[in-house]
Amino acid sequence: MIIVLKAGATDREIRTVEEKIKSHGLSAHISRGTERTIIGAIGDERHVDAEAFEGLEYVEKVLRILKPYKLVSRDFRKEDTVITVRGKKIGGGTVALFAGPCSVENRGMMVGIGGLVAAAGASFLRGGAFKPRTSPYAFQGLGEEGLRYLAEAREATGLPVATELMDPRDIDLVAKYADVIQIGARNMQNFRLLTEVGKLGKPVILKRGLSATIVEWLMSAEYIASEGNQQIILCERGIRTYEQATRNTFDVSAIPVVKGLSHLPVIADPSHAAGKVGLVEPLAAAAIAAGTDGIMVEVHNQPEAALSDGPQSLRPEAFQAMVSRLTRIAAAVGKTLGDA
Amino acid sequence: MIIVLKAGATDREIRTVEEKIKSHGLSAHISRGTERTIIGAIGDERHVDAEAFEGLEYVEKVLRILKPYKLVSRDFRKEDTVITVRGKKIGGGTVALFAGPCSVENRGMMVGIGGLVAAAGASFLRGGAFKPRTSPYAFQGLGEEGLRYLAEAREATGLPVATELMDPRDIDLVAKYADVIQIGARNMQNFRLLTEVGKLGKPVILKRGLSATIVEWLMSAEYIASEGNQQIILCERGIRTYEQATRNTFDVSAIPVVKGLSHLPVIADPSHAAGKVGLVEPLAAAAIAAGTDGIMVEVHNQPEAALSDGPQSLRPEAFQAMVSRLTRIAAAVGKTLGDA
Amino acid sequence: MIIVLKAGATDREIRTVEEKIKSHGLSAHISRGTERTIIGAIGDERHVDAEAFEGLEYVEKVLRILKPYKLVSRDFRKEDTVITVRGKKIGGGTVALFAGPCSVENRGMMVGIGGLVAAAGASFLRGGAFKPRTSPYAFQGLGEEGLRYLAEAREATGLPVATELMDPRDIDLVAKYADVIQIGARNMQNFRLLTEVGKLGKPVILKRGLSATIVEWLMSAEYIASEGNQQIILCERGIRTYEQATRNTFDVSAIPVVKGLSHLPVIADPSHAAGKVGLVEPLAAAAIAAGTDGIMVEVHNQPEAALSDGPQSLRPEAFQAMVSRLTRIAAAVGKTLGDA
Amino acid sequence: MIIVLKAGATDREIRTVEEKIKSHGLSAHISRGTERTIIGAIGDERHVDAEAFEGLEYVEKVLRILKPYKLVSRDFRKEDTVITVRGKKIGGGTVALFAGPCSVENRGMMVGIGGLVAAAGASFLRGGAFKPRTSPYAFQGLGEEGLRYLAEAREATGLPVATELMDPRDIDLVAKYADVIQIGARNMQNFRLLTEVGKLGKPVILKRGLSATIVEWLMSAEYIASEGNQQIILCERGIRTYEQATRNTFDVSAIPVVKGLSHLPVIADPSHAAGKVGLVEPLAAAAIAAGTDGIMVEVHNQPEAALSDGPQSLRPEAFQAMVSRLTRIAAAVGKTLGDA
Repeated sequence: MIIVLKAGATDREIRTVEEKIKSHGLSAHISRGTERTIIGAIGDERHVDAEAFEGLEYVEKVLRILKPYKLVSRDFRKEDTVITVRGKKIGGGTVALFAGPCSVENRGMMVGIGGLVAAAGASFLRGGAFKPRTSPYAFQGLGEEGLRYLAEAREATGLPVATELMDPRDIDLVAKYADVIQIGARNMQNFRLLTEVGKLGKPVILKRGLSATIVEWLMSAEYIASEGNQQIILCERGIRTYEQATRNTFDVSAIPVVKGLSHLPVIADPSHAAGKVGLVEPLAAAAIAAGTDGIMVEVHNQPEAALSDGPQSLRPEAFQAMVSRLTRIAAAVGKTLGDA
Repeated sequence: MIIVLKAGATDREIRTVEEKIKSHGLSAHISRGTERTIIGAIGDERHVDAEAFEGLEYVEKVLRILKPYKLVSRDFRKEDTVITVRGKKIGGGTVALFAGPCSVENRGMMVGIGGLVAAAGASFLRGGAFKPRTSPYAFQGLGEEGLRYLAEAREATGLPVATELMDPRDIDLVAKYADVIQIGARNMQNFRLLTEVGKLGKPVILKRGLSATIVEWLMSAEYIASEGNQQIILCERGIRTYEQATRNTFDVSAIPVVKGLSHLPVIADPSHAAGKVGLVEPLAAAAIAAGTDGIMVEVHNQPEAALSDGPQSLRPEAFQAMVSRLTRIAAAVGKTLGDA
Repeated sequence: MIIVLKAGATDREIRTVEEKIKSHGLSAHISRGTERTIIGAIGDERHVDAEAFEGLEYVEKVLRILKPYKLVSRDFRKEDTVITVRGKKIGGGTVALFAGPCSVENRGMMVGIGGLVAAAGASFLRGGAFKPRTSPYAFQGLGEEGLRYLAEAREATGLPVATELMDPRDIDLVAKYADVIQIGARNMQNFRLLTEVGKLGKPVILKRGLSATIVEWLMSAEYIASEGNQQIILCERGIRTYEQATRNTFDVSAIPVVKGLSHLPVIADPSHAAGKVGLVEPLAAAAIAAGTDGIMVEVHNQPEAALSDGPQSLRPEAFQAMVSRLTRIAAAVGKTLGDA
Repeated sequence: MIIVLKAGATDREIRTVEEKIKSHGLSAHISRGTERTIIGAIGDERHVDAEAFEGLEYVEKVLRILKPYKLVSRDFRKEDTVITVRGKKIGGGTVALFAGPCSVENRGMMVGIGGLVAAAGASFLRGGAFKPRTSPYAFQGLGEEGLRYLAEAREATGLPVATELMDPRDIDLVAKYADVIQIGARNMQNFRLLTEVGKLGKPVILKRGLSATIVEWLMSAEYIASEGNQQIILCERGIRTYEQATRNTFDVSAIPVVKGLSHLPVIADPSHAAGKVGLVEPLAAAAIAAGTDGIMVEVHNQPEAALSDGPQSLRPEAFQAMVSRLTRIAAAVGKTLGDA
């Protein structure tokens, strides 16, 4: 940590900072420059709060040298984490393929779509039973009933299922049915929920918050890891910007950036990023080319009648056609896509 | 709702849209323009999902005419909502003054600061017992112990207390001690938490999310209101933008915009918006000039030793001096500030 | 154009809007809904300013139905525009490959790098002689001397050259040497410069502004096209967002979105978007997978000594290795890359 | 400047950085920490490009200690710059009041509005003769004819006039008529234009770019100052964010932040920030409370017929009423407003 003092800081002020650094168990290193005095705090700065120094009136700024996360960092673990769920891998040489409807709407559609996407090469099924919705008047999901249909689709297809958890009070219920638990973008900083899934020990998909920095996203992963669960799958799903042509701006750079900073697998959700069916394939292709470990796609047999996210859902036949084209992109980067 | 069809939409497609509109209980109104056919859906569109039409391939875009929220809108209730808590008002001709430390750290500091800010004119005490922190390694609050100290500060000063709720499992605990329950920015779309405080019937401060639009913020208020609780205080605390000179960009326009759209009171939190003590007063002054119904300010007796948010906390004497200056701004817009 | 009136608009106000619409040569279509009256203005709305209606106190909002640009739209021209410069194509089945240093620094480096990138498969050379720099104290480019070296590199390699124009007073000078004129991101709304390159009739690369929406970008292209020049190449180079891990956020979605809205070719500049050499390849790969018509890459023989943009410049051997990998991605989407 | 090396940097790499620092005339200061080696470059870092170090593969990041601007900084000049134009002041104890139409439309309206705003207390007239418009089909201003009417309005009222310059080729023309030259938001980084107005020696209003950071804005001011012109008035006019309820997000914090970093006066343009007439007064009030040195307001005698910016223009009588209320806010912060 580097503490830059304001011009004209006195010897006494310099000494105060020095002592404060030592009180945290670090050593201080003072450089008097021509215009500013800067003080380095040497040692493990992760448990030292920059605010302790920023609160001093004669401090101009505090610069961190080390990353604020540890367990999820590439420094902590050099090799890529590969997660295996019921024999399906996330990470390594495959691009995992999560597919299914936005919401589980009824038994027939869930089992039906499950079968179709499995046939087209999906390696995981997805479907929401608890739905976070902007409006209190919108469909909120079927709850446990939806979880049961999801489990039936797993029985029918053999594919592991991923579904969202919104409330710490539902954790046992969701864990009973789900193979992979998803934390949605709006809950990325619901720290109590993170702590609970950290204790659970099941694989977790952690979606990036709507306006979360990559560092904040990794800090949320650190919450889960610090409870002992390292089976974390990061999911880029678009960030909020000024641009209105797409629902969100898909931050494709996040994929290589995160893979540089962390050992965790990163998947991409082009459906939510784009909000429009016509953009799902180019964004999925871009994500694969940029190195993603998986993609998550919304598929619906009748998108215009979907209870949520219809405009971004692919029909099963369009999904199948897309998978066969994406398989070529995956091959061009030396990977295989799903079970295709 | 206006549905704009793509160029070349067929009569059959137009008829499909027409029937779909009718199936939602609305009537359809068709205009064939020179380049596009547009179809108006007339009636209460709030329960009709735009996605139902966006999912059709021959639809170019769907434009909403009505606001998606109802109970919290100015259309629903013309006059300003004024909330009274233990005799202190939020809304009307006063600017409520919430003050106190970011976190409750111990009994002495909470009761001490409480006494000082009360003497300086605060009308409400604030202090966090449950703290949402970006890092799992940072101080997470004292929990119930903190709530007890907060209650002691209320006994000592007579001022009502506001404190944050992070987890639906803590609601009874927090409600036992707090007069006003705060929902933090990171939980603005924690819909389960909103539903719970909606059922509780205590006044709620709903902070605007880091990247929430004003419409989304009002939709979150609608979640609370739709459970029967209209005692909602909206709190602008800065939004996330590209600018790095301040922690967040304080969106002062949100104050008059929200007061135009909604009957609910709006307060401002300049401390979190700015992240720097030197900006608290100009932002508080700006908020008052722009019509805020209250301000919330972090005060700490020893900011450089604070367990959280030290850099943006005022010392009690600075707070007192600020209050006397802000009182003049409040007077210039015909209001009084706190109990000053 | 749809004009939504405020609740309670009077018959007289409705008539005023109606007459105003007619005075613009359009016809009016009135729908009285349960909560709002809405008035459609039917005809070519492009020359009608929405502000003329927004300025009326009883108007709630004005919604445009048609796109504000015409000549550059897909509606105006269905087939893709393909631009040919000295036998090299932009658009169609190739991914054009622009490569070269950020700034032309001296004859030797420009001719040297030119030869190396040509050998590696580049189809166009790039290099800046006039450099827009945030700081007045930074290197501002060699001016005409740089243009001459660029022309020498063209002689040596046979590749057409692209270079930036910053000032309408330099247009004859730049046009004398350049095959393709580049308008930088900071000048995307320098409307006088757009008008001048519109009159010139040489191919123009129009970079997207740092915070330009896709619509604004197309409107700037419309400025050029409206002067008679349709040889416009749009270039996505990243947009400004809150994320600090990359210099800009590369908006890969812009590629398919623009290709849907416009017939113009779209290329991508991953170097400026990323600001870091390690991200150039994944972003270039993503752009190709998403359908870009070209990529523009900064190459320098000694990045650590570059007078500008060193951190994002590839060494020639790294460029060559990247081209051979990207060629596989291009093949997976049925295209060829540059002259590789 | 602080250079942080990657973990595992070798002695040889450390020495290379050290020599590179010395080659720039600075001295190097090495600290070997437990996880990283960091090297301080001591001396005037303003002319050293961080990129020179970021381009080295073993460098993790480079942190600047000093501000990149000098002449416009508070360090360079402690006391506030006060600019006087024809006896009217910007800076010091007054809030300058710029008022007038967005565009000069004809002689009668310019002279008429000029007289009305002068009577209401304006200290400067504003009006655009050259208009930067997003659409090539929109009204682009009257050019020299507009400048003449502006000059006539000055004769009639005695107030100095401010108008926009868009093109370096028009500088003599604009300078012949204008007392204060305005550089619009879209031209904030039109560096050639900045250099020209720097040479001219007339007061310049420099509007903040749509997505410019405060540092970039000050760097653009530095361009002007470095040519010898220190009569620079910074103007906050809203920044681009995701929020759509206002045209731009008025960054009221920028006022106190800039006044801390720079000695230059800062004014505010609430009309452009808000885009809606109803928000002009609360934003103007907020700006005054936050310490602005001036406000710039669009006034039109017939906003619904304005050729540009009608929706945000006040009628003269509304302007007068607003001025009398704002005068009270100015008094509350110890200032006077315009000539009111």
